[in-house]
Amino acid sequence: MSYKSDIEIARAAQKQPIQKIGAGLGIPSEHLLPYGHDKAKISQDFINSVQDRPNGKLILVTAINPTPAGEGKTTTTVGLVDGLNRIGKKAAVCIREASLGPCFGMKGGAAGGGYAQVVPMEEMNLHFTGDFHAITSAHNLLSAMIDNHIYWGNELEIDERRVTWRRVMDMNDRALRDMVTSLGGVANGFPRQTGFDITVASEVMAILCLSRNLDDLQKRLGDIIVAYRRDRSPIYARDLNADGAMTVLLKDAMQPNLVQTLENNPAFVHGGPFANIAHGCNSVIATTTALKLADYVVTEAGFGADLGAEKFMNIKCRKAGIAPDAVVIVATIRAMKMNGGVAKADLGAENVDAVVRGCPNLGRHIANVKSFGVPVVVAINHFVTDTDAEVQAVKDYVAQQGSEAILCQHWEKGGEGTEGLATRVAELADGGWSHFAPLYPDDMPLFQKIETIAKRIYHADEVLADKKIRTQLREWEEAGYGNLPICMAKTQYSFSTDPNLRGAPTGHSVPVREVRLSAGAGFVVVICGEIMTMPGLPRHPSAEQIMLNDLGQIEGLF
Amino acid sequence: MSYKSDIEIARAAQKQPIQKIGAGLGIPSEHLLPYGHDKAKISQDFINSVQDRPNGKLILVTAINPTPAGEGKTTTTVGLVDGLNRIGKKAAVCIREASLGPCFGMKGGAAGGGYAQVVPMEEMNLHFTGDFHAITSAHNLLSAMIDNHIYWGNELEIDERRVTWRRVMDMNDRALRDMVTSLGGVANGFPRQTGFDITVASEVMAILCLSRNLDDLQKRLGDIIVAYRRDRSPIYARDLNADGAMTVLLKDAMQPNLVQTLENNPAFVHGGPFANIAHGCNSVIATTTALKLADYVVTEAGFGADLGAEKFMNIKCRKAGIAPDAVVIVATIRAMKMNGGVAKADLGAENVDAVVRGCPNLGRHIANVKSFGVPVVVAINHFVTDTDAEVQAVKDYVAQQGSEAILCQHWEKGGEGTEGLATRVAELADGGWSHFAPLYPDDMPLFQKIETIAKRIYHADEVLADKKIRTQLREWEEAGYGNLPICMAKTQYSFSTDPNLRGAPTGHSVPVREVRLSAGAGFVVVICGEIMTMPGLPRHPSAEQIMLNDLGQIEGLF
Repeated sequence: MSYKSDIEIARAAQKQPIQKIGAGLGIPSEHLLPYGHDKAKISQDFINSVQDRPNGKLILVTAINPTPAGEGKTTTTVGLVDGLNRIGKKAAVCIREASLGPCFGMKGGAAGGGYAQVVPMEEMNLHFTGDFHAITSAHNLLSAMIDNHIYWGNELEIDERRVTWRRVMDMNDRALRDMVTSLGGVANGFPRQTGFDITVASEVMAILCLSRNLDDLQKRLGDIIVAYRRDRSPIYARDLNADGAMTVLLKDAMQPNLVQTLENNPAFVHGGPFANIAHGCNSVIATTTALKLADYVVTEAGFGADLGAEKFMNIKCRKAGIAPDAVVIVATIRAMKMNGGVAKADLGAENVDAVVRGCPNLGRHIANVKSFGVPVVVAINHFVTDTDAEVQAVKDYVAQQGSEAILCQHWEKGGEGTEGLATRVAELADGGWSHFAPLYPDDMPLFQKIETIAKRIYHADEVLADKKIRTQLREWEEAGYGNLPICMAKTQYSFSTDPNLRGAPTGHSVPVREVRLSAGAGFVVVICGEIMTMPGLPRHPSAEQIMLNDLGQIEGLF
Repeated sequence: MSYKSDIEIARAAQKQPIQKIGAGLGIPSEHLLPYGHDKAKISQDFINSVQDRPNGKLILVTAINPTPAGEGKTTTTVGLVDGLNRIGKKAAVCIREASLGPCFGMKGGAAGGGYAQVVPMEEMNLHFTGDFHAITSAHNLLSAMIDNHIYWGNELEIDERRVTWRRVMDMNDRALRDMVTSLGGVANGFPRQTGFDITVASEVMAILCLSRNLDDLQKRLGDIIVAYRRDRSPIYARDLNADGAMTVLLKDAMQPNLVQTLENNPAFVHGGPFANIAHGCNSVIATTTALKLADYVVTEAGFGADLGAEKFMNIKCRKAGIAPDAVVIVATIRAMKMNGGVAKADLGAENVDAVVRGCPNLGRHIANVKSFGVPVVVAINHFVTDTDAEVQAVKDYVAQQGSEAILCQHWEKGGEGTEGLATRVAELADGGWSHFAPLYPDDMPLFQKIETIAKRIYHADEVLADKKIRTQLREWEEAGYGNLPICMAKTQYSFSTDPNLRGAPTGHSVPVREVRLSAGAGFVVVICGEIMTMPGLPRHPSAEQIMLNDLGQIEGLF
């Protein structure tokens, strides 16, 4: 049997008009703002009108530590929703939007794959409904207003050396990482060193994704710290009167986007904060709106469960006042084998021993997620080379941990391939077994919060941080930021800070290199290792192959 | 009587669903791609399907040299279409999209004013349908691919000192005019001096606005010269394989946008190239599509007729194979007075002598436009302080020039206020009097083309250009670019290159400071004076006042 490519499957989709998808959720067409015939935004007025309804069940899809073999979180999220609808449940997807920059580099799209996709896939990987462009504009308006304020006399006494607000672009462009601007003489301002990050790394992105409504959005935008004075006192976006105009630029972007799966089930695709220096989840407004309109809402979080699920629980759930009713941890046989020491080239051959050796990585994620008080099920995302013996080995291992692993074939069969998982997820979510609690209380000191995550989630022995960092954390506590949650930025490939340390390491240390305050988003970023906030393009970027074919279809976007 | 602000009038508009506006033009709803309920793009398939239809009549709205008193070109364009529809003609507006950057600086919107506006005005002045964001992305993808090519070994042997392709942002941000990028070490590439222009100054914008279809778009994008080698041989966007991906990014942006006037008449709002380093007109695809769907299409060109109408005739009409059937020159009594030497503060008082002294500016524009073989009518855009005697003075002057000036009150009364103008314009356009010919043939040498414009349009005595510039022009002729038209970049405030020289000066010289080849757009830019391609913000940018009010409406965008 030969397999079709993702883009071929997506093109062949029998899409329904987006008004019909909206009607299935009870959204009147005047409250669906269409973007073409297959995408729409849900009006703020409609969102306001459903706030008193009860919430549906919330299901988080997370994963083991990613390997080059892939685990398929988005694909499983989409497949699970199709499966839930097949067994008669009213379920909706909540995922993130794709970043345009990486699509022209080497990363594929973010719309799922095989027969578990969200469509229109091409547009989701390009401009979509313009949300990221709006975020770029709002971010860079603030940047321009900072330099403009300095230019016209600097009444606020901004220390040009301490401007922390950079610029952003939705592009992989290493040349923009580090630059000196305002060259060329008096008319162009005061030269200073700065740079660009990619748009998904913008604090505006994190703010949009954590804001409950437009008022909350404007307040958080105003709270952004853009620079410091010589006396180290902070200057806020509000001091520049930038928060109102930024809110206006983000007014439409705050409205969640509605699209559909290949099986015509609703998908809320909204927001896309980085999973390292931000929290890596779909927007609060999309998730909370979906919870008012569907009985089961399936959402995902970036990277493995040590980063993604931890931030989902400790940042998003805490801020949004929501809690997961069940968690799905996605694993693949191939990724288990890589965790068990097999090289990528040898993944095709059966190797039960390696699968067994890789399982402790999965086991620790199961235990970690359970420690939040939520029920867990493992989804084995089936790959054509998997053998029955390998699958059984994972099932046996998970059973020993007191959970269940269920084989899923959504990539090949769509919702039909996840009926088993869907049935179990619905049972768990409906069973009332979730007694969610975040890992640490708001009033724990910041450094202790970091230690709690490192010890309880990463199973490290200690957190290493020099005096400067500890002093900085204490200063923020004195300034009133001590109640914020922590946003860990470390490698996604290991529980530790060493990307090559697979499996379930213990006895390691977590060195903190830098801490950053995202006062608008409302978290303290703790950086452990190299964090790239502006990617580069590879030697031969996929942009070289992306083009329109003779039928006007997009080729090369995969 | 008290007057409502533009935004108040726009908010009170009785908009029709955009499908109804499209239906009035015969566009089936499946070929109208909606963006919300009041904006849509017209599908490429539909545009292809109407190519064999006959064209309607094309009317250009241009103006005297602008003054701080304003002349109201867009307002008159919109009012004229409403007037034409009122007298039973099927007419459509074709205007440019607004640039987001200046809206946050000090410039008002670009959607007309008073009761002659295009709606939704707020969205037109913000992200609209995302076209400018798409142009920004396509432009900056090419920029990233240039630096990336150099980074990975520079096979094409790009001379880093001769990279002519900059980056763009739709923002007024003087700090980005001049910078050194790729600082910070080996991983960030090779440091070089470059900068950002505002998006409307991008050659990609000019290309999108001059392309007849997607194939033409891709060819022109490939033709862009991005850099030179040490031997001065050019490197094209095509050499970097960037043209395909850029076309994909611009696929939706190439589809014209349809909105409506306050009186529910169709408006094609598409493209917005700078009127100095580019040609300053609505897109060719919007204009040619409108000509297939309406009997009268009214469009405008940027700045006064010496720049706007000249480029419309010599660049857009020549490239698109279209010709105006009539031209409207807009003048105001206030602007006539300023041309006659009155200061802005004194414009309120009656001053017939000053009006008469200012008229020669209008007279020269009338003669210039007639020299293209097209019939002319003058629209006096009425202002509340105008007196009957002042209006009569302009009418008398224009009659002496063998044309007619008609008082228009569209700002106050909408289409009712332009019925007289509409009747006369329809007579002129239907009369078959237009025998359009561009000012110079394709095969005239480049320098001679510049001289022809300077002498016949500006009434200058001579063009001054040093040897380097003349040699450059000859080299381009040898390289096969000699057949391109000229895109003059000079001050909009005077026929001369001195912005303070009002009226109808003679005997002046036109000094050429620089020439640039826009090989993709297909013209040679001739720069006479300071040309700002990245504006700055004023001391108190309007962004400080822009915000959402308690009703969720936008305030401060005017």
